[in-house]
Amino acid sequence: MEEKEHDPLYTRRHSLAHVMAAAVRRLFPGTKLGFGPAIDNGFYYDFQFAEPFDAERLPDIEAEMRRIIAEKQDFVRREVPFAEAVKFFEDEGEALKAEYMRELADKGESISLYDNGEFTDMCAGPHVDNTSRIPVDCFCLDYSSGAYWRGDQSREMLTRIYGLAFGSKKELKEFIRAREEAKKYDHRKLGKDLELFTMSEKVGLGLPLWLPNGTVLREELEKLAKEWEQRDGYKRVVTPVITNEQLFYTSGHLPYYADSMYPPMNIDEGQNYYLKPMNCPFHHVIFGSRPRSYRELPLRLAEYGNVYRYEASGTLAGLLRVRGMCMNDAHIYCSPEQLENEFRSVIMLHKRYYELFRIENYWLRLSLHDEINTKKYVNNPEAWKQSEDAIRRVMKDIGIACEEVAGEAAFYGPKVDFQIRNVVGREETASTNQLDFAVPERFNLTYTGSDGEVHTPYCIHRAPLGTHERFLAFLMERFKGVFPTWMSPLQVLIVPVSVERFGAYAEKLAAELNDRLFRVEADLGPESMNKKIRTAATNKIPNILVVGGKEEETQSVTWRRHGHQEQRSLPFAEFLAILEKMRQQRVMDNFEDTILPEA
Amino acid sequence: MEEKEHDPLYTRRHSLAHVMAAAVRRLFPGTKLGFGPAIDNGFYYDFQFAEPFDAERLPDIEAEMRRIIAEKQDFVRREVPFAEAVKFFEDEGEALKAEYMRELADKGESISLYDNGEFTDMCAGPHVDNTSRIPVDCFCLDYSSGAYWRGDQSREMLTRIYGLAFGSKKELKEFIRAREEAKKYDHRKLGKDLELFTMSEKVGLGLPLWLPNGTVLREELEKLAKEWEQRDGYKRVVTPVITNEQLFYTSGHLPYYADSMYPPMNIDEGQNYYLKPMNCPFHHVIFGSRPRSYRELPLRLAEYGNVYRYEASGTLAGLLRVRGMCMNDAHIYCSPEQLENEFRSVIMLHKRYYELFRIENYWLRLSLHDEINTKKYVNNPEAWKQSEDAIRRVMKDIGIACEEVAGEAAFYGPKVDFQIRNVVGREETASTNQLDFAVPERFNLTYTGSDGEVHTPYCIHRAPLGTHERFLAFLMERFKGVFPTWMSPLQVLIVPVSVERFGAYAEKLAAELNDRLFRVEADLGPESMNKKIRTAATNKIPNILVVGGKEEETQSVTWRRHGHQEQRSLPFAEFLAILEKMRQQRVMDNFEDTILPEA
Repeated sequence: MEEKEHDPLYTRRHSLAHVMAAAVRRLFPGTKLGFGPAIDNGFYYDFQFAEPFDAERLPDIEAEMRRIIAEKQDFVRREVPFAEAVKFFEDEGEALKAEYMRELADKGESISLYDNGEFTDMCAGPHVDNTSRIPVDCFCLDYSSGAYWRGDQSREMLTRIYGLAFGSKKELKEFIRAREEAKKYDHRKLGKDLELFTMSEKVGLGLPLWLPNGTVLREELEKLAKEWEQRDGYKRVVTPVITNEQLFYTSGHLPYYADSMYPPMNIDEGQNYYLKPMNCPFHHVIFGSRPRSYRELPLRLAEYGNVYRYEASGTLAGLLRVRGMCMNDAHIYCSPEQLENEFRSVIMLHKRYYELFRIENYWLRLSLHDEINTKKYVNNPEAWKQSEDAIRRVMKDIGIACEEVAGEAAFYGPKVDFQIRNVVGREETASTNQLDFAVPERFNLTYTGSDGEVHTPYCIHRAPLGTHERFLAFLMERFKGVFPTWMSPLQVLIVPVSVERFGAYAEKLAAELNDRLFRVEADLGPESMNKKIRTAATNKIPNILVVGGKEEETQSVTWRRHGHQEQRSLPFAEFLAILEKMRQQRVMDNFEDTILPEA
Repeated sequence: MEEKEHDPLYTRRHSLAHVMAAAVRRLFPGTKLGFGPAIDNGFYYDFQFAEPFDAERLPDIEAEMRRIIAEKQDFVRREVPFAEAVKFFEDEGEALKAEYMRELADKGESISLYDNGEFTDMCAGPHVDNTSRIPVDCFCLDYSSGAYWRGDQSREMLTRIYGLAFGSKKELKEFIRAREEAKKYDHRKLGKDLELFTMSEKVGLGLPLWLPNGTVLREELEKLAKEWEQRDGYKRVVTPVITNEQLFYTSGHLPYYADSMYPPMNIDEGQNYYLKPMNCPFHHVIFGSRPRSYRELPLRLAEYGNVYRYEASGTLAGLLRVRGMCMNDAHIYCSPEQLENEFRSVIMLHKRYYELFRIENYWLRLSLHDEINTKKYVNNPEAWKQSEDAIRRVMKDIGIACEEVAGEAAFYGPKVDFQIRNVVGREETASTNQLDFAVPERFNLTYTGSDGEVHTPYCIHRAPLGTHERFLAFLMERFKGVFPTWMSPLQVLIVPVSVERFGAYAEKLAAELNDRLFRVEADLGPESMNKKIRTAATNKIPNILVVGGKEEETQSVTWRRHGHQEQRSLPFAEFLAILEKMRQQRVMDNFEDTILPEA
């Protein structure tokens, strides 16, 4: 927040929230107020309307806002004693504001209010000095929705009105255009249109069912990760999705994380079992299942583990926030001397994934401990110094943009986040690499060093692709549903010019491709050839082979690529070689520069 | 049971149980009796001893049994009124027997007792007519263990004494020898020695954790199944491990199967969620997630699904009986006309699996409905006739031994079981193929036929490899821990003649193999070469490459196979080609005839 408050755009957005509230009070006298902050892309304000609010009135409010701006009202800040402020809002009938202010009362003697025109709000500011500073073509009202007072479901349901506001008219228009575009490629829409996943009320909230097409995406990602990580020396394990609660008490998830876990199942006369929200404790059990020697380190245990987290039903959203998810988790147990190399390998592995998927707009955030307020952290100054120095060296070597944030480390060690921007420009944490020097001790994990002594290993938690659910939602939107051939659910569709005459040839080619484990179909339906090609385009099938008499005679195919008019005739054997190469090398043929790879 | 009761060996085993009880009563007066049946391989009897039983007394009991046999006691059957029998056992102080008999009392007027010498037991028989019919060298006592009265943990703990009995002395000896041999290769022992899986008290009962080596076995099986089934037109899906209880009420698992399920988790204010004990309902939800056309059938949905079943803790045994398991389940939705072909493909797929793994000792059991007692079955005579005829035709065509059992079908359709014998000769059901014409109706699953009308599909449940847990336990024991190269956790170990001089060459070869995704290690430890080769043998590593000066000079390797003294020198490139072939063709090089495959 601190930085944003000095941002002129942030200030303007915040002032617009006040202007909107003033406009609403003019048009709907008696409306009570909640909170009204600036947010990414604009602002909102929560209102308690006397009558249900009709979204068709948004243009009226916007028009009134422009009138207020034209009135050139000053924003005036004044500091008043708490008691006076509380009384002011009580007298105004603003029960919610007064309630909040009473809670704040022990924080200080006085509070700041801002007046513009006849409107007064409690507010820390800052604001523009006069409403005329707000360009009238850089904002608009967006939409309204319900929101509980202070997010509490047991409290009043208010009406939240959202507005957009940018630095220029052009930016505003660009944002609206990009958002419209993004809506077409929202992963929920693509998931339905391309039959990637579905949700079912019968199964429950936040529990996606992956349909055959979506399962292909998952499995191709898994194959990729397993190959690359096998080469990097990871060893895979499989652990149960439930465990006796004892394990989570050892790990510390219980009781602290209990709210995010499903409730326990009580069996065997008094034993509580929980669905796992994380895989770590199971890997620690495996590390500790027998004595370990330094010769086994680094031991890198990886698992595509299913985890279940009890998220509030109101927060669930498509694949972005679910209750059941699958992640390629790994835990690397290493000696202090190995830490730097291991961290470097982990970051390099990320880099390879990002390069493969052409994710360019990313940077790193290194969260360090706070050297002054050390009480928040595991008390092991040597480990903090050693590990933070090692990670800093890696960050420097690797040459990816990196911001350091002191005081943001976890209790048990520093971490490196990969930050990306999604299609509407929102910053997201794609994955976290967490160093942990507390958990090995909790689990009493040790190894015998070359010195014959017992040592405690470090542990790195990493999951470069995050969860299948989030990462595939990201890829769906980034690729607009057009997947590269190697990932694509249906890789090749064969369309005969005439089913009667060339259906057999189409089927022969399909059988040959199927035998080589390509995902292929021959479309022998009654529709016309052109209709089939149009349907294939809707389904975003990357490769269409059109076959007729000429093709059959020369054992060739006419190859069309998704989204492109030009086509190319080539021997089937050559097409096969290209296809094989696209699969083996994981060619990203959904990008312009690789549309038609050569053999 | 019916058939066994006419088996003379079964009769003899049953009589031996009575003889043992008589011997125990002579040696330990006051001992009370539980049940004493004939079982596979012999017999047992449950006793309530006044003092804790010492297994060192087994030879005494066996000697007393031989004396009783020498006494040439007649077995005499007599029918007595219930009341009289109850009184007899009450007078004898046989509270458990009396309790059971009172429960039976409403089943008939009288009950049969058998006397031999001074011993009397309630028993349906039959028995040998005289103890002298029992050859004294064909049986022996085996061991004793605890067993709850009627398997109920809340009741008395009794002592169960087991005996072995066979048709001849030779068979008895052969069984004991085979069992000793099998013990060496018990999957629990192999699982520990080869680090395939582990169990942890902290995680809980019946919940194996798959270690890196065991995970390789699982993943190789999965790869195999996914490849073969992709070629056979299966489509893979992924579904959550939990669901709202509603789904299990629709499927009928609740309330009837509740005892075998984990207890519910109550969330979202009153919604019960359960761990899934089966995958079927989720696949039905996917089939029903949108309207289906006949053009999509047969739709074959497959999933490596994790299921959880609450088995009583006393019945858990290694990987053979667990609470958490993973199976390659599939559900095939097809029209009645497609049924025969689909069933044939399923059986043929089994056959290919069995041929690959060289499982020869298997046969099929076709369970049909009972044409007279039709009340036990879904009332759809046409479906029963059509499907049973179709399956019979498949059975005939396919040429695998098949026994038909009338009256053993499930409520909702006929089934075909694959029966195998395990290493100690015990018959087991390896997998079940169940036809289901009830569930599609419960889930209201339909498709639009070519006639434009709405039809209900048939559904075939199949899982040719059963669960990972059972099938891998079977393979571990069958292969005695020596896996073929393509499945083997570590495929190649490279041992330099001298680490100092040829360690670099060994590492170079290892890097090359690793890059091609073979599982390889170069052993650069301080031990001697011979020690390393011996350790590799203990770890059952299928391929060892010994490399020294000659090998480095000619870029070759000296190849040793597990369990064989002879070795072979060949260019590394040629070895690579052979290895590649063994992997791609899944050569079973752990069998004599494929020990050293050619390139």
